[in-house]
Amino acid sequence: MKISTKKAKFTNPLYLESGRILEPYDIVYETYGALNEKKDNVILVCHALSGSHHAAGWYKGDRKPGWWDSLIGDGKAIDTKKFFVICTNVIGSCFGSTGPMSKMYPTNEPYRLKFPVVTIKDMVKAQKILLSKLGIDRVYAVIGGSMGGMQALRFAVDYPGFAKKVIALATTHATRPWVIAFNKVAQEAILKDPNFKNGDYDPKEIRENGLNGLAIGRMAGHISYLSHYSMDRKFGRDYVTNEGLYELFGRFEVERYLEYNGYNFSKFFDPLSYLYITKAINIFDLSRGFDSLQEALEVVKSKLYLIGFEKDLLFLPEELKEVKEAMRDIGKDDLVEYYEVKSDYGHDAFLVEVDKFSDYINAILEGNR
Amino acid sequence: MKISTKKAKFTNPLYLESGRILEPYDIVYETYGALNEKKDNVILVCHALSGSHHAAGWYKGDRKPGWWDSLIGDGKAIDTKKFFVICTNVIGSCFGSTGPMSKMYPTNEPYRLKFPVVTIKDMVKAQKILLSKLGIDRVYAVIGGSMGGMQALRFAVDYPGFAKKVIALATTHATRPWVIAFNKVAQEAILKDPNFKNGDYDPKEIRENGLNGLAIGRMAGHISYLSHYSMDRKFGRDYVTNEGLYELFGRFEVERYLEYNGYNFSKFFDPLSYLYITKAINIFDLSRGFDSLQEALEVVKSKLYLIGFEKDLLFLPEELKEVKEAMRDIGKDDLVEYYEVKSDYGHDAFLVEVDKFSDYINAILEGNR
Repeated sequence: MKISTKKAKFTNPLYLESGRILEPYDIVYETYGALNEKKDNVILVCHALSGSHHAAGWYKGDRKPGWWDSLIGDGKAIDTKKFFVICTNVIGSCFGSTGPMSKMYPTNEPYRLKFPVVTIKDMVKAQKILLSKLGIDRVYAVIGGSMGGMQALRFAVDYPGFAKKVIALATTHATRPWVIAFNKVAQEAILKDPNFKNGDYDPKEIRENGLNGLAIGRMAGHISYLSHYSMDRKFGRDYVTNEGLYELFGRFEVERYLEYNGYNFSKFFDPLSYLYITKAINIFDLSRGFDSLQEALEVVKSKLYLIGFEKDLLFLPEELKEVKEAMRDIGKDDLVEYYEVKSDYGHDAFLVEVDKFSDYINAILEGNR
Repeated sequence: MKISTKKAKFTNPLYLESGRILEPYDIVYETYGALNEKKDNVILVCHALSGSHHAAGWYKGDRKPGWWDSLIGDGKAIDTKKFFVICTNVIGSCFGSTGPMSKMYPTNEPYRLKFPVVTIKDMVKAQKILLSKLGIDRVYAVIGGSMGGMQALRFAVDYPGFAKKVIALATTHATRPWVIAFNKVAQEAILKDPNFKNGDYDPKEIRENGLNGLAIGRMAGHISYLSHYSMDRKFGRDYVTNEGLYELFGRFEVERYLEYNGYNFSKFFDPLSYLYITKAINIFDLSRGFDSLQEALEVVKSKLYLIGFEKDLLFLPEELKEVKEAMRDIGKDDLVEYYEVKSDYGHDAFLVEVDKFSDYINAILEGNR
């Protein structure tokens, strides 16, 4: 599989949903496989909150491959022998695309809290512009899970006819208070951490020591990505150590997991990006600007494939079913399909239990559905 | 209804499960109604994590009555015209019973982090000792929800024959990692807050300004006490204000709720007590010291009434059903009854939707079940 990572630089302004502009801006993206002559073999992959453009394959020194490597590759469900796959880092993120710690032109200083609010609509717009620049005006499919699924749905509504197939996993059409509440915990933890310094932190220091507030927020996030059942299986009531009176004083395995992942995460993810992206998730509403979800979906020309996960506690399967119902309401049954993955893993199943839905995705992409 | 609040002082040591002792110690308790001559009309009520001995009635200046006022009172399900109801503040808490901020005899300084780990077993033992002091050797019923339910179950196992009826709501027999994970978020938030000062905070300062870490932990707690559905109904995607571009920049109602309740809570609840009580919850396991839950339940002589709540996400109904199954396994069907409350409110339903189970509780107490 041919992997290539590039940065595209844009000097024209990006007009944001808020009325503000981003100018100039960069988009980092990764591609897998090769574009065919007709340019009709493109699949755009959209990442989630903490993801990046590195969706598949291995970088030198990687301890883990890209975040959807089990799905994307030669001979895999998203077959890179056949398809030209692109994944971009969303604007507002911290892996190379323009975000809060990028320089605010014409100064030499980072935006920090002066960075504009970006929305899922803005993220999608930037990706659309990048693709145009690459000479790609239509794609065969857009696919994403969680916040990536929000982007996929946004593509269907904002750019009708752009994607032949839109595949949205473990996501919603409008973020519900349960999710906003988890994001709130993280946002408060970051904002109230004195080392955040109201956004004026030294990024080097954060990379070295992490930021407690972000670590704590990420721990809360991890809860929301799992389920009672996956936690029972992963951790149970096991203790880390067997020392002395461990039954009363020991550390539980689940505690170690949260500590390790929380503090580790806070060393490589930018806290301001976390604030901006969680904000984008909170304010996501596919029907904003329309009178109803039905009205928003009226414009859709893509076939929507909605994949819910049985015990997803972050985005309940019923939230995607509502999209299906709304499509039915407006007589578009033929353009929507809902598939529920049997899993008690929780939200993260879209990353972890790929084997449970890869055949379905392959069937979609092979044109068999 | 006659309410009386008292403090009992004990100079004998309280031998704790950890092997350490508490000496001397105080227990604050509240009583409602009157003890009859035969002393056979006692109902012991056990409180949850953030609760206190103030279970019912109004104090002067109260803006809210006691936490289970809708259940306890003259003519209510727990009828104080008939029963003598007692509720004690658990040891480790911060409403008058001995806890981490109590003076560590013989010094004049608070224990702080030198306070011993207390367990649910210890909390129950202290209550048993208090009742003995009051001349009460048996009670008609013990009842509690959440951590209060853990205490109720503990009574059944640790003091067989003490309570005729044990009523445990919205609880478990052994805390699962889902709950430990939520507690972990709160513990980390408290411990990493510089104003916590490794436990050496000035309590006056905390009462005035609160502690961000505790507020953040409490916000996470609130999520765990609700459900997707109760949040949808309470908050939806409503914004607090209607100013300007509120759809992008406003504060969601759910955010305001968490802020208000989180920061407010951190002004009246002691952060060290929060650490110690969440620890007690985490390490609760009814079968500790036994080979199995079944073995632990072998000793039970009380009739167990287990009340699960359909959409309780903190303690799943199935966790109480496991107790029922275990009782069946050992041929004690006659001593157990499981009742599931239809509710999509979440864990807090045991406090908020009392009307959905008060008839059942009344029937139990009237001897009709």
